[in-house]
Amino acid sequence: MRNLILGTTCLLAAGCGTTAEPEVSSQKPNVVVIFCDDLGYGDIGPFGHPSIHTPHLDKMAREGQKWTNFYAAAPVCTPSRAGLLTGRLPVRSGMASKKRRVLFPDSDGGLPENEITIAEILKEQGYKTACIGKWHLGHLEPYLPSNNGFDYYFGIPYSNDMDRIKGIDHYESCVNPKVEYFQVPLMQNNEVIEMPANQITITKRYTEETVNFIKENADSSFFIYLAHTMPHVPLFTAQEFKNKSLRGVYGDVIEELDWSVGQVLQTLKEQGLDKNTLVVFTSDNGPWLTFNELGGTAGLLKGGKGSTYEGGMREPTIFWWPGKIAPGVKMQMSSTLDLYPTLCNIAGAKMPDDRIFDGYDLSPVLFNNGETKRNVIFYYRDTDVFAVRMGSYKAHFKTQKGFGEDTYTEHDPPLLYNLDVDPAEQYNIASDHPEVIEQIKARKQSHAESIKPVENQLEKVIENSGVDYQKKSL
Amino acid sequence: MRNLILGTTCLLAAGCGTTAEPEVSSQKPNVVVIFCDDLGYGDIGPFGHPSIHTPHLDKMAREGQKWTNFYAAAPVCTPSRAGLLTGRLPVRSGMASKKRRVLFPDSDGGLPENEITIAEILKEQGYKTACIGKWHLGHLEPYLPSNNGFDYYFGIPYSNDMDRIKGIDHYESCVNPKVEYFQVPLMQNNEVIEMPANQITITKRYTEETVNFIKENADSSFFIYLAHTMPHVPLFTAQEFKNKSLRGVYGDVIEELDWSVGQVLQTLKEQGLDKNTLVVFTSDNGPWLTFNELGGTAGLLKGGKGSTYEGGMREPTIFWWPGKIAPGVKMQMSSTLDLYPTLCNIAGAKMPDDRIFDGYDLSPVLFNNGETKRNVIFYYRDTDVFAVRMGSYKAHFKTQKGFGEDTYTEHDPPLLYNLDVDPAEQYNIASDHPEVIEQIKARKQSHAESIKPVENQLEKVIENSGVDYQKKSL
Repeated sequence: MRNLILGTTCLLAAGCGTTAEPEVSSQKPNVVVIFCDDLGYGDIGPFGHPSIHTPHLDKMAREGQKWTNFYAAAPVCTPSRAGLLTGRLPVRSGMASKKRRVLFPDSDGGLPENEITIAEILKEQGYKTACIGKWHLGHLEPYLPSNNGFDYYFGIPYSNDMDRIKGIDHYESCVNPKVEYFQVPLMQNNEVIEMPANQITITKRYTEETVNFIKENADSSFFIYLAHTMPHVPLFTAQEFKNKSLRGVYGDVIEELDWSVGQVLQTLKEQGLDKNTLVVFTSDNGPWLTFNELGGTAGLLKGGKGSTYEGGMREPTIFWWPGKIAPGVKMQMSSTLDLYPTLCNIAGAKMPDDRIFDGYDLSPVLFNNGETKRNVIFYYRDTDVFAVRMGSYKAHFKTQKGFGEDTYTEHDPPLLYNLDVDPAEQYNIASDHPEVIEQIKARKQSHAESIKPVENQLEKVIENSGVDYQKKSL
Repeated sequence: MRNLILGTTCLLAAGCGTTAEPEVSSQKPNVVVIFCDDLGYGDIGPFGHPSIHTPHLDKMAREGQKWTNFYAAAPVCTPSRAGLLTGRLPVRSGMASKKRRVLFPDSDGGLPENEITIAEILKEQGYKTACIGKWHLGHLEPYLPSNNGFDYYFGIPYSNDMDRIKGIDHYESCVNPKVEYFQVPLMQNNEVIEMPANQITITKRYTEETVNFIKENADSSFFIYLAHTMPHVPLFTAQEFKNKSLRGVYGDVIEELDWSVGQVLQTLKEQGLDKNTLVVFTSDNGPWLTFNELGGTAGLLKGGKGSTYEGGMREPTIFWWPGKIAPGVKMQMSSTLDLYPTLCNIAGAKMPDDRIFDGYDLSPVLFNNGETKRNVIFYYRDTDVFAVRMGSYKAHFKTQKGFGEDTYTEHDPPLLYNLDVDPAEQYNIASDHPEVIEQIKARKQSHAESIKPVENQLEKVIENSGVDYQKKSL
């Protein structure tokens, strides 16, 4: 089958036989996960943005499935990524903390060695694996992608607003950014190859790296985790996209990301791989509203990055696999945590049986118009369960609107919303449904009992790492 | 061409010749305008609603053009409809008033005889014309559709929350509605055929009437103005749609409207008319937010029905004409006022030259990837220009958030927003752009000079009309 799919490519390739190879029919499907940074639920065409042009995402959604109830594992960067790659809530791997919500350049921790990433699983299944883009799960050697199942890494290992030079404050540096304000490293495998990373060309280079990796590995199965640095502030775009969007600088950035999606899908088609490749497009958390028009929008949803309201964790998500996934809209509750078991299934890999996972295989919905086993979403703020969704009901036990706020409000009884009827979380119906609240409380309790204490990775800090780029103040 | 398009239909039709008739190539295109009532900008799939299933509108948007900057002529019902049908701002026809914002059952006025509706223009061009649904431009005989260019009328002549029986207040009757609370008439041409109109089957019957009109007039050009009564409160659906939507009662109603759209498009296809028919889907004004979860959502836009913020007047709009309109997304400023000149152009009719029109032909955008001549939107609240948009800038001279509020706030300098960058109208940039404000003020002034005093139609009230259904209190 693979031989047929490769068609024209095969004719051009050196050493390509004219008869079908016996093993080709068992070629495992490729996977590309495109993971944006701080993209809002309402920031792309298929999710209703009125002035950002996203023709490639429009097409991807037309040809694939738009998922409207798909969640990130956490409302901020590091824990969200840990959840996606491990299939486990970040609290289980020590990748969530109240004191330090994400990893910083002076961090001494990262994803623990005993965690098994989806890249490690797929690599064991013979996949060529690449992480291209933002890592943010530990930038010291033991924690880098190369030690977490990735054959290849190219990217900025943490957020692009870090390693800020002295003399300029964070907000100002992000609102009127210059490349040299942010002395962030660009790494290839375990080496720093550029510092500061030239962020003007970063989306373009991530895209080129992805396209090249696809082409170079067209005759083996591959897994690419393309974790864009954008649209996290500071915002940069290649010259071709500058001042092109009606939506301003933020729109320019999204339109370059849209172009990037187009490049990836087009390459898959040109290589004859589209019918054997699952592509997932989503984001790590909601829009950074603090930055006003330089941040995105969650559309009709409340809140943004950092918040356990829907806008903080519900993501604009598209699954694409022509010929395999029937086009349409899916409203099932789902999560980045579900990618792990789903990809295991697709690759024919067994899930490790020595640990708790928090995801559910999405295959029945993706491929068979069925249902998943997921009936709950836990909305963690750091190590605390602030809210729980069961079915269409969501109970908020604590709320904290703003991104940087340290204080929260406790709710007893919790606020209760029916998210299907009231996705904007406007009408508290707690007094009408005490029985629902009891069920959710019980589920929250049984979940709490499944969480075991582990070493916290985000709170580990070094004074002097011996690596220049880690010395910078935050 | 028509002969070819009609294909199978022609074979079945009595008296259908086997050779092409000479005149068929000049067959004028059909037009169907589907006009919802109080549908919000964010209430359908293509505009980002996460829990309302609208597969037919999704498909219509995929096959057609999604217009993201398309406005109603006014933020409430009667003036909005007057604008659409006359191509002129309602203030020019006396169809706007501060005292009575819409027509009521005790109204004695309506669309003046000297106004020329688009139906009258098209009828003169040989079109068969039907108004199916809500009229709301005068329910006394001189003002009915039959006196305004429509060959056929079937519908409730004003809002479905009118003619309320005594002893129940408006809010309560709309929140827990029964058919008999609203003694609204259902009319066929100039006769009342049912009272109270059975609103449970109203969407279904409007759809059947439309389907039948298409079939009956398949061999002539037709114009159908299908102005749904829904989703204006009180909300009713046919049994098949009850409790079917995740979004609750409001979702049930939208999903029935979506089904209706599907029926219309399918009928056009079955009749071989799809390639010769322009279908436009839009709404009269934004969602009625007063009704909480029984009202819709404007998505990321601010405000709703009655407001001159974007949520009051920007509408979820789709144009569809397979083979003639290239699929895509259009972000050009546009209005229901533009339908009049556009349809004149399509039908080969001359615009009347004895009056001012406020619309611009959309054909260059629809058919040729070009631009329209529109560079301004006037946001009227009743007879006052509250806001003006020129290009991407919108200046609010007065604002009034709530639907029923009588007081407004004046702004000098006006609030200024860049709607492309900031569609949610969050960041006032008036102090950065005094020159833009000057331009907008000058445009507002020149516009004011074009408005001539006319008899106000909405303020004409009768004590006893002699028609039973008009005697009811509001």
